[in-house]
Amino acid sequence: MREKVDQIRMFPIITLTTDFGLHDPFVGIMKGVILSICPSARLVDLTHDVEPQNILGGALALEAVWPYFPDGTVHLAVVDPGVGSARRALAVRTRGHYLVGPDNGLLTPALMDAGWRAVALTAPEYRLAEVSRTFHGRDVFAPAAAYLASGVPLERLGPAVTDPVRRPIPRSYLEAGALIGEVLAVDRFGNLLTSIEAAQLVGLPGGRPGAVPVIVEVADRAVAGPVEAYVDGADGRPTAIVGSIGRLEIFVRGGRADQALGVGRGAPVRVRAGEG
Amino acid sequence: MREKVDQIRMFPIITLTTDFGLHDPFVGIMKGVILSICPSARLVDLTHDVEPQNILGGALALEAVWPYFPDGTVHLAVVDPGVGSARRALAVRTRGHYLVGPDNGLLTPALMDAGWRAVALTAPEYRLAEVSRTFHGRDVFAPAAAYLASGVPLERLGPAVTDPVRRPIPRSYLEAGALIGEVLAVDRFGNLLTSIEAAQLVGLPGGRPGAVPVIVEVADRAVAGPVEAYVDGADGRPTAIVGSIGRLEIFVRGGRADQALGVGRGAPVRVRAGEG
Amino acid sequence: MREKVDQIRMFPIITLTTDFGLHDPFVGIMKGVILSICPSARLVDLTHDVEPQNILGGALALEAVWPYFPDGTVHLAVVDPGVGSARRALAVRTRGHYLVGPDNGLLTPALMDAGWRAVALTAPEYRLAEVSRTFHGRDVFAPAAAYLASGVPLERLGPAVTDPVRRPIPRSYLEAGALIGEVLAVDRFGNLLTSIEAAQLVGLPGGRPGAVPVIVEVADRAVAGPVEAYVDGADGRPTAIVGSIGRLEIFVRGGRADQALGVGRGAPVRVRAGEG
Repeated sequence: MREKVDQIRMFPIITLTTDFGLHDPFVGIMKGVILSICPSARLVDLTHDVEPQNILGGALALEAVWPYFPDGTVHLAVVDPGVGSARRALAVRTRGHYLVGPDNGLLTPALMDAGWRAVALTAPEYRLAEVSRTFHGRDVFAPAAAYLASGVPLERLGPAVTDPVRRPIPRSYLEAGALIGEVLAVDRFGNLLTSIEAAQLVGLPGGRPGAVPVIVEVADRAVAGPVEAYVDGADGRPTAIVGSIGRLEIFVRGGRADQALGVGRGAPVRVRAGEG
Repeated sequence: MREKVDQIRMFPIITLTTDFGLHDPFVGIMKGVILSICPSARLVDLTHDVEPQNILGGALALEAVWPYFPDGTVHLAVVDPGVGSARRALAVRTRGHYLVGPDNGLLTPALMDAGWRAVALTAPEYRLAEVSRTFHGRDVFAPAAAYLASGVPLERLGPAVTDPVRRPIPRSYLEAGALIGEVLAVDRFGNLLTSIEAAQLVGLPGGRPGAVPVIVEVADRAVAGPVEAYVDGADGRPTAIVGSIGRLEIFVRGGRADQALGVGRGAPVRVRAGEG
Repeated sequence: MREKVDQIRMFPIITLTTDFGLHDPFVGIMKGVILSICPSARLVDLTHDVEPQNILGGALALEAVWPYFPDGTVHLAVVDPGVGSARRALAVRTRGHYLVGPDNGLLTPALMDAGWRAVALTAPEYRLAEVSRTFHGRDVFAPAAAYLASGVPLERLGPAVTDPVRRPIPRSYLEAGALIGEVLAVDRFGNLLTSIEAAQLVGLPGGRPGAVPVIVEVADRAVAGPVEAYVDGADGRPTAIVGSIGRLEIFVRGGRADQALGVGRGAPVRVRAGEG
């Protein structure tokens, strides 16, 4: 354990999550800035494929991934439609991790627990000498991540921020005895990721003991399941499952649920008690 | 040489090959799990762009790449349509490398030589505490790869497996004096990668001395060549070549062979002796 | 500072820029070759998404990114339509960096300053034992990058080259009092990147003091701006800005300039003095 901590201190991990794609030079430039400040950093690409300027999409990506990393990891996240405006730049410390990015709600997943601390990235010695109004990923966020990884204390990067912008990920709610939610995203396999979380689903197999059967509807159409594994889905038929990141998903075994149901992000999802 | 071995032991290399794409959080989650168990690991993305659930495509990707890595490398591969079923999870040691993935044929390229050893990944202390039925990449395969990289002996991960599933990559065969094969894949440049291997092509330039001329046909259409370099292809005309991974390929210089010939994966390829 | 240099020497950084994409095995193979020769290398993907065989696109990608990396970095670049022909293979040292790639103009960004040195990669001990005519990325360029990263002096890799091929990135020019340029590329956000550089734009806000207003036209249509930040763009209306890599760009706030103007690479751009 002691050895692990030393390795991370000597070769700190910085993850990157952006909407920049990998076709343009932006990600490469940020990597160069980081390694020029902190040459021992180990860079780990999470995704650069967040839908352009979709802050919620970036927050969902961060939320699903950052808790799996070891203590001491720095997570750099840039989905920044407001670059050049008065929006603040943030670094947050929570549960032994650092998250760095614009103050537009992207870092909401780091602000859910008690115990976070945040600062505004204003200290000129921890930014590039010249700060543009077009690319804070390079001028502000990459340097902050690199200095944090180098061991600079959070507090040195700027004044405390106690009111960071939050953009909560949509949660489902109870209405007339049914859970009402929506499709948050469609994954590479065509699976529909919903806003309904496992903890809300007392009636699902694998949920709490004594669970009652439930019926899942997407855009008013009942789907099969819930089942416990993708292989239990009926061929060709949309089926509900609690997926690996703890959310209710709809999938088609050997197919695509988005196409089978003709729905995408925002489609309504409803879970109600079954007859069983 | 001694120094090289030490560097790989201290900062072990783990490659990743999946069909998860880079849009969704799955790859990032596996990276976090690996680095939490083995913080000194150096992660090398091979491809996450295997066609979803195409086990043969994943095996082809592994076969082409893994032998180029240094001894001691751990190769983590996940194309896993059967996750949650009774299919086993495997780790294989062969020629000083480790390969980790589902027992569905994906690891066939590691099982071709004599001398491999395989185990089923069942030891609970080398899996995550809770193993889902939906994401063994996170719960079983990433931990196994990380523990192997940390120096845990293969045999500790579970009982020996002597009958792993194999899904041989299609080979060409001789029929009436001609080599009969097929298109296995289309690459980014539109080149057609075939099942015909260099060693089978005695008549090709660059093949064995005393070679006789051959005629290559794709879907019953004769193509030009074989030539020895892409620059020797006639502009606009499909041409055969023994490509860089030792397979017969069809290309169009400055164009795309898939479009020029109107064919894709599975198209028949025939090589017969020429008149010359 | 001393410590930084040591870390880079012990764990040298090699960046990769290619047109190979990440679907095929080519990038993985190069990574394996590099790590087999130089196991301590830290690999940093810049982009593998250069348009296939577009040398200018590759040169633009390199130019935008390499100067941000620390001294001692090795940049491996492969966009190589002439592989297998007589075109030379190069390694260049400039400003403390190394760049390795085909002698077809791709490395032009490393040849703009005085003080570069180049060699042809001919020394057999620093190539793979067998050199194909189809994949010099694997057989010639990856080994050269790995040996340079391992500390082999440039001069050992082959004889000096004093006349490398250059393919200058198009520059704008003055004609009848107006700056005449073109669209060089379209980025992921639909922004048009032009050949007009900030230094040529005395009249832009943020340019020299005493600047006069200017009018920017794309394909003979006047656009708004120039403005200083993307957030200052009028919704839906194409607007000029000096972007983060020092070039005049055209963007649409919350939209795509390429679609709004119906133009792409090669479209004419003109900047002339305004009435103001």
